[in-house]
Amino acid sequence: MSTFVVVGGDAAGMSAASKAKRDDPDLEVVVFEKGEWVSYGACGLPYYVKGEIQSLEELVSVTPEQFREERDIDLRTGHEVVDIDTDDRTVTARHDGGEVVQSYDHLLVATGARAVTPPIDGLDRSGVFTLGSMSDGKQLREYVARARESGDLQQPDRGPACQFLENCTGPVGIVGGGYIGVEMAEALAANGFEVHLFQRGDRVLKQFSEATSEAVLDHLDEQDVRVYLGADVEALAGDDAVAAVETADERVPVEMVLVGTGVRPRTDLAAAAGIELGETGAIATDAYRETNAPDVYAAGDCAEATHVVTGDPVYVPLALTANRHGRAVGQTVAGTPTEGGGVAGTAAVKAFEVEAARTGCLDHDEARAAGFDPLTETIEAKSRAGYYPEGGTVRVTLTVDRPTGRVLGGSLVSEYGEGAVHRSHALVGAVTEGVAVDELSNYDLAYAPPFNTTWDPVLTAAKVVDGTR
Amino acid sequence: MSTFVVVGGDAAGMSAASKAKRDDPDLEVVVFEKGEWVSYGACGLPYYVKGEIQSLEELVSVTPEQFREERDIDLRTGHEVVDIDTDDRTVTARHDGGEVVQSYDHLLVATGARAVTPPIDGLDRSGVFTLGSMSDGKQLREYVARARESGDLQQPDRGPACQFLENCTGPVGIVGGGYIGVEMAEALAANGFEVHLFQRGDRVLKQFSEATSEAVLDHLDEQDVRVYLGADVEALAGDDAVAAVETADERVPVEMVLVGTGVRPRTDLAAAAGIELGETGAIATDAYRETNAPDVYAAGDCAEATHVVTGDPVYVPLALTANRHGRAVGQTVAGTPTEGGGVAGTAAVKAFEVEAARTGCLDHDEARAAGFDPLTETIEAKSRAGYYPEGGTVRVTLTVDRPTGRVLGGSLVSEYGEGAVHRSHALVGAVTEGVAVDELSNYDLAYAPPFNTTWDPVLTAAKVVDGTR
Repeated sequence: MSTFVVVGGDAAGMSAASKAKRDDPDLEVVVFEKGEWVSYGACGLPYYVKGEIQSLEELVSVTPEQFREERDIDLRTGHEVVDIDTDDRTVTARHDGGEVVQSYDHLLVATGARAVTPPIDGLDRSGVFTLGSMSDGKQLREYVARARESGDLQQPDRGPACQFLENCTGPVGIVGGGYIGVEMAEALAANGFEVHLFQRGDRVLKQFSEATSEAVLDHLDEQDVRVYLGADVEALAGDDAVAAVETADERVPVEMVLVGTGVRPRTDLAAAAGIELGETGAIATDAYRETNAPDVYAAGDCAEATHVVTGDPVYVPLALTANRHGRAVGQTVAGTPTEGGGVAGTAAVKAFEVEAARTGCLDHDEARAAGFDPLTETIEAKSRAGYYPEGGTVRVTLTVDRPTGRVLGGSLVSEYGEGAVHRSHALVGAVTEGVAVDELSNYDLAYAPPFNTTWDPVLTAAKVVDGTR
Repeated sequence: MSTFVVVGGDAAGMSAASKAKRDDPDLEVVVFEKGEWVSYGACGLPYYVKGEIQSLEELVSVTPEQFREERDIDLRTGHEVVDIDTDDRTVTARHDGGEVVQSYDHLLVATGARAVTPPIDGLDRSGVFTLGSMSDGKQLREYVARARESGDLQQPDRGPACQFLENCTGPVGIVGGGYIGVEMAEALAANGFEVHLFQRGDRVLKQFSEATSEAVLDHLDEQDVRVYLGADVEALAGDDAVAAVETADERVPVEMVLVGTGVRPRTDLAAAAGIELGETGAIATDAYRETNAPDVYAAGDCAEATHVVTGDPVYVPLALTANRHGRAVGQTVAGTPTEGGGVAGTAAVKAFEVEAARTGCLDHDEARAAGFDPLTETIEAKSRAGYYPEGGTVRVTLTVDRPTGRVLGGSLVSEYGEGAVHRSHALVGAVTEGVAVDELSNYDLAYAPPFNTTWDPVLTAAKVVDGTR
């Protein structure tokens, strides 16, 4: 009997374990997870903190018991793998009062990512949080609950964000204007906090187009989130507890700080075992997610993936890729070699009452480095027929290669419910298949007055870009 | 100076005229339109009848004055073209008390479609309507207004559809369960009518998948629309006014009937001029929309198009194709030969509180005739993350070619607002590019909890179909 060992029990790890066991029930599948939670939806944590989800258990799609009993997977929570020996084909895991050595025929490293620790003084003060794990989410929610109970501390004129509470609290600081920063601004404002968001760069959501960033920034402003751009946070000041965010220019009093400045891959274990890392710092793999060590795979937030546009290895730690690559490894290990496909760097975010998505290659320097001559245009169009009683505005940014017209990337933003995110599905296909923008403009996309104008905004964008190149 | 003459002033005609004049301002552009309305959104008529749009003018995107003054197009409304002479390169148009002969260098036939007249007795009774033109819309709206004013005739227990009125009226009959039938059921029910819908076939929306048809049928039932399937309407009985719909099996008393049994191309003029029709009965063209007559083009609801999956000429009279092909002809005539692209038969519809879209080739007989070995599967999936507070269900049907996995067609249905229509954008690309379903299942589609599950329902469908072939 062959043994498949998985290190890490979240999206990539449990997808691989489940798929391998389903495809080959004779396979012994052992998963080591150092924590107690497995297969949880970390993407849901902002909504748990916001209060729209009532218990952490709701974020768990399959419980440890279900993995063990229904899927016949030897899942060992509370087991931290401390060593991989690729010569002996063993891993060593430490658990409460003991150590176990497990041999493998196939191994998947799915150790995920950890929050980046930015060079800021005072990160260890109380009242400073990150949001990477279930226990982070629990602590934040408890903080929010406590603050709400003693909620008469401050009653600033909160405007539309302060919709769920009579008494507003705060102020609080968010360091980082990426997905987590923006989603947590919504979660905290909805609980009545006065939110100050500090972004080092010159725009929020910097992976999106400038036009999308601007639209989201305008909306954050409408929602009374105070956004500080170009703000290099130097210290989280205070005594025991954090009391202020200090940048080069100012000192903003706060009662709590959330640090959401991105993640980096957890690679210590792999690196110590001689498994090669790529230039991005994540574990390098081939198209089957196999590392330089034979029969050792890496997938999810600890590993690189190949960009569908540039063909280069990239580090884009997102949930779907972890699931998809994990599943592909499971299928491979069970006997059907399977590539999990590339990544387009597609991402979606809701920020209060706007939604946005991005895909492909938008950055001109990156595009040029990959041999393209990038051209970017943004159009603004009605989200539904002009005469239809509901509706809003969709802004579509397209980046194309000027000589060939190839669609390299896109970014969309609209009011929440007006379809920026689902419309991006059209662009993912175009980006993945290397479709030229004139061909995209001829796509026979669905039309009816409640859903778009005769030319969907995506088509209008394609026509406009094609006309300017 | 070269002259471009256009016969018919709706979507295809005005798109061509506008594009040609914009690209080549020296071109003389003459449009003959027999009615008074040009460039109107006929797709909006159900919402005008429903009462969500207040005036017919709102459906007009560009007025005749704007075409004449801002776009410098010689638009002649009230001019019916009665003859085309392809040898002399002239058209003859009849107008109030006169006739004009106009020569052309390029000609576009954009005569549109007319409502099918099914073999039913009594179509000429008063109270029998169709919904093809602006004047049809006006008459229907006036009927609805009159009925509402005398609205105490009947007060049936209308249920959820009867939401806008205290007094309900009717009953009314709809013959045909396609887009118009379904949209008008919503429009009439919203005005308090008891609606009886008669469909000859065994399901509504027969161009969609069976699963989509079933979901829409269930919803029509929830909305108290009485749907009669397999109902061959034989007569609209009554004296002067219609009083009942008679099928082989029953007689249903009604006060009004809307006949929406599809359209057929208006080809009399073209056929009389020796312009070839295709097997579908619509005007045959090449990829540039040029007919067998040199420099004579045909586009929009009077013309065939090429199906992107089967490669065969098809007749799919829909708004986007008319706009796109009209625009392409304008571009060609202005000096840049332009193919307008094929059609995927993509369509979208809102029916009360559900939305649906379809694209590509779903019919197994059609697929087999084109050399494919079709396989169809339907999945049901959550429209958003399971833990997210809002959300519903998306049902996705995929039809693929079993040996190659090529995606041939798809059909989606969800609650209104849960994204069936915009998600179909992903499938249009797959169908158009000939993508295999295993490749589609690896697409890096946008994900965030407010918008989908980690695997969007489209991806889940692709995985499931790929697993069964």
